[in-house]
Amino acid sequence: MSIENRLNELGITLPEAAAPVASYVPVVVTGGFAHVSGQLPFVDGVLVKGRLGDDVELVEGMDAARACGLMILAQLKNAGVLDNVERVVKLGAFVNSTPEFTAQPKVANGASDLMLEVFGDAGRHARAAVSAPSLPLGAAVEVDAIVALAS
Amino acid sequence: MSIENRLNELGITLPEAAAPVASYVPVVVTGGFAHVSGQLPFVDGVLVKGRLGDDVELVEGMDAARACGLMILAQLKNAGVLDNVERVVKLGAFVNSTPEFTAQPKVANGASDLMLEVFGDAGRHARAAVSAPSLPLGAAVEVDAIVALAS
Amino acid sequence: MSIENRLNELGITLPEAAAPVASYVPVVVTGGFAHVSGQLPFVDGVLVKGRLGDDVELVEGMDAARACGLMILAQLKNAGVLDNVERVVKLGAFVNSTPEFTAQPKVANGASDLMLEVFGDAGRHARAAVSAPSLPLGAAVEVDAIVALAS
Repeated sequence: MSIENRLNELGITLPEAAAPVASYVPVVVTGGFAHVSGQLPFVDGVLVKGRLGDDVELVEGMDAARACGLMILAQLKNAGVLDNVERVVKLGAFVNSTPEFTAQPKVANGASDLMLEVFGDAGRHARAAVSAPSLPLGAAVEVDAIVALAS
Repeated sequence: MSIENRLNELGITLPEAAAPVASYVPVVVTGGFAHVSGQLPFVDGVLVKGRLGDDVELVEGMDAARACGLMILAQLKNAGVLDNVERVVKLGAFVNSTPEFTAQPKVANGASDLMLEVFGDAGRHARAAVSAPSLPLGAAVEVDAIVALAS
Repeated sequence: MSIENRLNELGITLPEAAAPVASYVPVVVTGGFAHVSGQLPFVDGVLVKGRLGDDVELVEGMDAARACGLMILAQLKNAGVLDNVERVVKLGAFVNSTPEFTAQPKVANGASDLMLEVFGDAGRHARAAVSAPSLPLGAAVEVDAIVALAS
């Protein structure tokens, strides 16, 4: 089954692939890998802003991370490689959080669980989840990815 | 000499490979590389918590980074690829620190020096060391890795 | 045209490749990729220190990011692979910033625009830009890189 069919089956609609907010490209495909730029959480076209531990609740943060994951999929689709994903290799999750907030892994699960849902075993990835004192445009979460492609 | 023998020779005992604290896997092997998830510093099974520049001294931070490095080795062993390491390619070190603390490189050396000890020239890696305002579970340091494997 | 000639044409003089500030190496070449360690912004040999949103203005931050980019090129040259760059794959930009500062992408453009200038289409890269509460030696910006090499 194609990943697009799998997304339909799950009732998941991908967002429009967001244009980069600066001088870079969303995806680079080379050497059997796709490197996906850090994606921000857009829900219905609106950026999820704020800080975990302050004005963003855990469940909102998880939803924001899932939105970043959906944008990663949208970027892979836009780059024409969504159906070539052999393995999700690595997610890097940056969580806008206060110094007291320590549940970055739970937040990042929003993106990680999406990859498992969509790709099954091929979605089982390595990950680093850390905090940042602020993120581009005030975003609550940013997630980048490395994906291995079938040749 | 196998890496396990080298560890014995150095008197280094690897910890039990920690289970991921969330929805991801510790190691992904693909395309000649192993990507290792961000590892937290467990010493005798206890997480080293706190913040450099505040309640964690430099030497404790270095020990914590070394503990992250040991966990990276434990994860590679658990994934069955420790003896296939051709080169430690990159370490990413995130140091829980105050805005005033600027010795992240010294802290990260705890992990870097371990790689040189264990792998010799093959342990000479690229690195990025930065601060984070907080880390998962309150950890003092988190280190992830990319390793090249012999085919 | 060689990249060195292109740099001359652009009037760009590379800095001396900085020695690592700790136990690692500037560049690891393996598996068709060069991984470049996080580079700090040296302008005329002096480290650009400070924090965006506080004592570093946006334009100074962009210049600092460009200086990090120049150091990445200097490290690739020093490693003997500058003319083998097939594609700049990924830049990771860490911006020393206050919790209120959210223009990390603009800052990071200092490095990204340099890659486009020097490499043209081959300089179009994926990127993650995030903030950090502090950086090594008090640096304003740190940028690391993954580059694909022609075989």
